[in-house]
This record gives sequence, C-alpha cells and structure tokens, in this order.
Amino acid sequence: MNVLPVEGLPEIEAGADLGRLIADAVELEDGDVLVVAQKAVSKAEDRVVRLADVDPSERAEAIALDGDPRRIEVILGESARIVRLRPPLVIAQTRHGFVCASAGVDASNAPTPDALVLLPLDPDASADALRTRLRELTGRNVAVIVSDSFGRAWRQGTTDVAIGCSGLRPLVDLGGQRDRVGYELHATVIAVADQIAGAAQLVMGKLDGIPVAVVRGLEVAGEGSAQELVMPPERDLFR
Amino acid sequence: MNVLPVEGLPEIEAGADLGRLIADAVELEDGDVLVVAQKAVSKAEDRVVRLADVDPSERAEAIALDGDPRRIEVILGESARIVRLRPPLVIAQTRHGFVCASAGVDASNAPTPDALVLLPLDPDASADALRTRLRELTGRNVAVIVSDSFGRAWRQGTTDVAIGCSGLRPLVDLGGQRDRVGYELHATVIAVADQIAGAAQLVMGKLDGIPVAVVRGLEVAGEGSAQELVMPPERDLFR
Repeated sequence: MNVLPVEGLPEIEAGADLGRLIADAVELEDGDVLVVAQKAVSKAEDRVVRLADVDPSERAEAIALDGDPRRIEVILGESARIVRLRPPLVIAQTRHGFVCASAGVDASNAPTPDALVLLPLDPDASADALRTRLRELTGRNVAVIVSDSFGRAWRQGTTDVAIGCSGLRPLVDLGGQRDRVGYELHATVIAVADQIAGAAQLVMGKLDGIPVAVVRGLEVAGEGSAQELVMPPERDLFR
Repeated sequence: MNVLPVEGLPEIEAGADLGRLIADAVELEDGDVLVVAQKAVSKAEDRVVRLADVDPSERAEAIALDGDPRRIEVILGESARIVRLRPPLVIAQTRHGFVCASAGVDASNAPTPDALVLLPLDPDASADALRTRLRELTGRNVAVIVSDSFGRAWRQGTTDVAIGCSGLRPLVDLGGQRDRVGYELHATVIAVADQIAGAAQLVMGKLDGIPVAVVRGLEVAGEGSAQELVMPPERDLFR
C-alpha cells in the first residue's frame, strides 16, 4: 500500500471545482482511494460562518467563559445533542451522528481569522459528487473519503476518521470467517475507512497545506456510507 | 509512505525470537517503523492462559450469562477498572491504562481453541526489546509499535492502535505552530502512533496470518511511550 500526498493544490475557495484541481494535480489510477480533508470540502462548499454575522444566545455566553460566545453559538447550532460539556469545551453529536469536539466547527485553516468552518451538510454526498466529477474528468474509477480529525474517549491525540465516503465499504466484517485454529471471528468488524483516513493524515500534515492524499494498492470495493460508522443508539454504551 | 506486509512468518510460539524471525523475513531500512500485532508479541512472551486452568469466581459466573465464566474470570483478572458492563460484554481499563473490550483478552488466533491470549505485561518494554534485537541482528535503527485492535466509543468497528512503542514520539503536538492564515493550532495533538498502527492493519488483515508490517518513508523520531496515549484521569471526560 502506498500513501501519496497530493502537492501543489491552491488554497481552496468557495465554489472551487475540487475535482478539476485534484485531476490537474495527480495522475489517478483505477482503484485509488482519494482522501480529502473535510476543511477543503467545506471551503469549496462555502460552509463558512463569519463571527461578525453571529448573535450569541445567553446559553452560548454562559458556556463561553472567557472565550468568544459567538463561536459557542455556532457550535450549538451544529449540534444535535451535547454529549459532554466542560465550558468552554463542548463535545457534541452532529446532525450526521458524529460525536466530536465543537460539533466539527473549527477556526484553523479557515479562509480568514474571523471565520469558522463547519462540516459539510452531507459528507457522503460530497464524496459521491467528487467521485463522479473525477470519473468525468479522468475516466478513472476511484473511491473517495472525506476525512476529519477527531479526538477519542480515553486516548490522547486526534486521529483522522471518515465522515463521508463513496465507492467503498467503510466497515469490513470478518464475522463467520475462521482464523487458523478454527476460532470464529464473530466480533471482528474493522473500520477500514477510518484507518485509511488516518493513514492519509500521516502524509498530509496540518501545516503543510496538503488537504488531499491518494491511497494506492489497497483492494477496496462495494458501496457504503460513512453513516455505517456511527454507533446506533441501542448498541452505544457511552451515550 | 509505503506500508509493506511482512509475509512468510511462521506461527509464533512461546519463546520465539521475534527479532530473528522478522530479520529473516524482511530487509529493514533505517527509519522504518515496524508494526507488530500484539497477538504475536503475547504468544512469543507466553502470555497465554488455558481455560482448563481457570477457576471462575461467583462474580464471573454472574457476568458470563450463557458464556464461559472462565473467560470472564480471566478478563476480570486483567482489569484495573470496569468501565462498562453489559453482560457478557465487559469494557475495562487494563493495568496499563488502556480502555478496551475484554481488557484485551482474546481467543482469536490463540495457539489452541481452549486458550486465551492476554496483552503483554509491558508492551513498551516488548517494543524496546524487539528494537534492540533488530539493531543487533541487522544494524538498522527502526522504530517499533506493538498494535492491537480496539473498539471506540460512538463509532462502529475497530481500528488498530499502539499499545507499546519504541523509537518514536506517539503524539505530535502542533501547539504554538500557525496555519496559513496565522491561526494558532493550540489544540492539535495528533496520535501518529495510532494512525501508523491503523495503516499497518490495512495490509496485515486478520485472517491472512500476517502479524507484522513495515511503514517506510515516514519521518519519525524521538523517544516515547504508548503510555502518553492514555488520557490522564483529570482530562478524561468519559470516566
């Protein structure tokens, strides 16, 4: 398996044709998995809020402490459910179902210092659209993952995970298969899309401004949604 | 970055010289990161329990339901703290501090059907010893990660993470650095060792019997312990 950073992309602006930019920057091959940082997708889709346009609620003022209540207001607006609150830290479940810090709202790598970038409205659809556009432009059939950096319970540091995908099954279930001594691997479901996102992050870096990587030589197939990665409430021991 | 499975290793037995087996199977280069599945390390270190030797407590009987109470007894013995209990499912914190299903106790890929494999007593020390042995045998300076497949809160599927490491810093802190618009990335600590472990899992598979992979072309450096990946209690919102 090879993981290749896609260098030379310009700063992504609202309305950018991401597919065109990527097709111009890298020679894709059939079977490649293209990993695109959420920030680039969100900026192309203009999922950006200016702090100057935000009017914070009393609740946001109370949570913000010494920080900017307008930022908290935006986070609350992106949240379907607050999972943990330690002001000014908010861990929330987004409308997509993802549990992450600040409901995915982030100021780093924003277009301007007073801007916040939100998660795409439908990251699976973003991945689908990019995959279709790349096929149009290059004739290549690739899979696409939209990735973001999430913290984890109990472990320090972020790892990149898949918040949208197209052209691969995000989970590979080894249930029913048997290992070398015949033990049934009934509980082994591997979040391959998250591991691919994490592998891509290793070559993308945060500061290098490389929002895209290609993972080559991995056999992925099928269709699936990053929604499959969301733990359903009835199986969730940590609600 | 290249991720290469190490093929042709024999079944790992108690007392195996893992370093010798790996050095014979792959041409290492300076700067490689070698990822070794916990199961291989534990088997070489004979961290294996036979169910026939286990006498279950009443508590284990109560938790096991229809399952084997001897298995639960072994899990309880490996646990420093029970994090969630939904019998027969046990999520526990191990003595190393890792939070995972069954305190890392696993029957899959065990040497025999009545055996359970436990986590290494000190996975950092296991990584250190393997690194030293490989330097002796090959003259190469590599980093070593001992990996295991952990479930996650809120997300389906397992990803491989680092439970031991030697020759790299498991966390890379971008704190104080600035992105392209000057925003300070104060909260950006990346769990690179976990992402490397996950990347390696993609080529190792569970059924192929490939417990070792080499990650090449990544600039890692420094020294660190996988203990750094454990969230300290005072920062842990999910105890």
